[in-house]
Amino acid sequence: MQNPIRIGIAGYGNLGRGVETAIRKNPDMRLIGVFTRRPPDTVSPLFKDTAVYTMDALKGFTDKIDVLILCGGSKDDLPEQGPALAALFNIVDSFDTHALIPEYYAAVDSPALANNKTALISIGWDPGLFSINRLLGEALLPDGETYTFWGKGLSQGHSDAVRRVDGVKAGVQYTIPSPEAIEQVRSGSRPELATKDKHKRECYIVLEEGAEAAVVEKAIVTMPNYFADYDSTVHFISEETLHKEHQRMPHGGFVIRSGNTNDEHAQVVEFSLKLDSNPEFTASVLVAYARACHRLNQSQQYGAKTAFDVAPGLLSIKSPAQLRKELL
Amino acid sequence: MQNPIRIGIAGYGNLGRGVETAIRKNPDMRLIGVFTRRPPDTVSPLFKDTAVYTMDALKGFTDKIDVLILCGGSKDDLPEQGPALAALFNIVDSFDTHALIPEYYAAVDSPALANNKTALISIGWDPGLFSINRLLGEALLPDGETYTFWGKGLSQGHSDAVRRVDGVKAGVQYTIPSPEAIEQVRSGSRPELATKDKHKRECYIVLEEGAEAAVVEKAIVTMPNYFADYDSTVHFISEETLHKEHQRMPHGGFVIRSGNTNDEHAQVVEFSLKLDSNPEFTASVLVAYARACHRLNQSQQYGAKTAFDVAPGLLSIKSPAQLRKELL
Repeated sequence: MQNPIRIGIAGYGNLGRGVETAIRKNPDMRLIGVFTRRPPDTVSPLFKDTAVYTMDALKGFTDKIDVLILCGGSKDDLPEQGPALAALFNIVDSFDTHALIPEYYAAVDSPALANNKTALISIGWDPGLFSINRLLGEALLPDGETYTFWGKGLSQGHSDAVRRVDGVKAGVQYTIPSPEAIEQVRSGSRPELATKDKHKRECYIVLEEGAEAAVVEKAIVTMPNYFADYDSTVHFISEETLHKEHQRMPHGGFVIRSGNTNDEHAQVVEFSLKLDSNPEFTASVLVAYARACHRLNQSQQYGAKTAFDVAPGLLSIKSPAQLRKELL
Repeated sequence: MQNPIRIGIAGYGNLGRGVETAIRKNPDMRLIGVFTRRPPDTVSPLFKDTAVYTMDALKGFTDKIDVLILCGGSKDDLPEQGPALAALFNIVDSFDTHALIPEYYAAVDSPALANNKTALISIGWDPGLFSINRLLGEALLPDGETYTFWGKGLSQGHSDAVRRVDGVKAGVQYTIPSPEAIEQVRSGSRPELATKDKHKRECYIVLEEGAEAAVVEKAIVTMPNYFADYDSTVHFISEETLHKEHQRMPHGGFVIRSGNTNDEHAQVVEFSLKLDSNPEFTASVLVAYARACHRLNQSQQYGAKTAFDVAPGLLSIKSPAQLRKELL
């Protein structure tokens, strides 16, 4: 085994904790430390041998970290941290504001190129693995349609919306891909489907004392933009059940390409995820791409890259010869 | 649009015809011709503007073809053609004898390297897309199990076996992934499953006149190695039904990785194919990888490569900036 790949974690929320956990499953990696904006002595890492430093300490680690994994949010943290840190480190991040990716790519590319660093941006499952499968579908079956379904997953925005309804004490909302729509797509018939045809919404609500279930239900299912256009269901549960059964962060989804190689022959390619923990899985993806990032940098592939630029073999701990022998 | 990528097809069976069809769905490609061992005037191409040449004529095309797609068989054709043609052309092939891949890789690598050619070997769906997903599963979820299921698909070897049974006039055999096994794997429970636990076998048989169905059925389901260990079903059909409903070459399958990011959280990654025509889909994969082969050669990536060495972006007709904007 070569020297381990030395990893740093910038930002320590759910995603950062997922990375901390995932590194321990990869024997070719070593965690140098977690870097946080909070006072380090107020942070309790999941594993007691994890070192915690201030974000400001990072500049002293430029020769001690091979790849820095950015675990901040796409709205406020990454637009600032990505370009700044790509000048100092090889970085991997999960920037996921789809519409702003070209702009973010450019902002990270220049400092990375100027400093011989490699920056893998927008890594995770969407953008990331789902993007790869959207690309594959188009490239393999040019005459076809691509369908992306999300869920079953907890939606933060819609959960916030139901909690603002009068009479709701607490609650969560799940987006659920419609089984009927999935079957239609899998059949190869290439239906036209809007987002609302592909997904159902399910709410689990704890009522405030004295609130009337029927009134609350109606207020939710008729809420414009959020629920009115969807097939929405409301379940009323106790506070205890909410805490027991709805604390996990499941997610997942499907990318299906339905195409034709000729008029008679339909071909269906499907990629799907069923995740008990969205942040832990995303973290696992980031960690595998950190390995690729290190290798790309070692072969002088500098600048910003995305999942589209990474050959699959670079993600694996195994050698190319071993991969050909064991997995091809 | 740049100059089209000029493609040659070496070997003209089902796969070669699939490539001929697929090229017409890719506007950046042009078919230069089909090369066959048969006398060209005995060959009727699917499209009348397809030129047909003898295999011997190939050496006159070294500066007229950018990528040659080898459509011969893995047993007799490719072991000879691959190394010989990789010295003259960039090639893509679907060599699929899994156990012999390392040997074949070496045999193709030397002539390709010596002549600045790029050779993409073992491209298709298994080996190929399924291999990529086996690799991804391991790399993303190191603590897990990978399950490959094949089917529903026509098995040539098993169809031959049932046709040798006394009383069988004609027949076909399909390998079908067991729905129960797939559900078990999808649940995240990581069961131990042998190939026979994962697949069922279904036979569609036309009886010879006077043959007894019960006797034939017993002879099939108790046949050692082929059927005895499997859940096997025999359907008796008319010759007319056989010709009407069993002439297609469907196939497909599933690669499922079931892993854990920690003791509590299971994560399931699944890739699947449902193909009306196995050779046409394989051909579509070869054609997309021909685009990548041409680009790799243009960036001086010489020698033998596999699907593990190809970044997804190289497969697409779109530019990197367009891919980031539209598909990421």
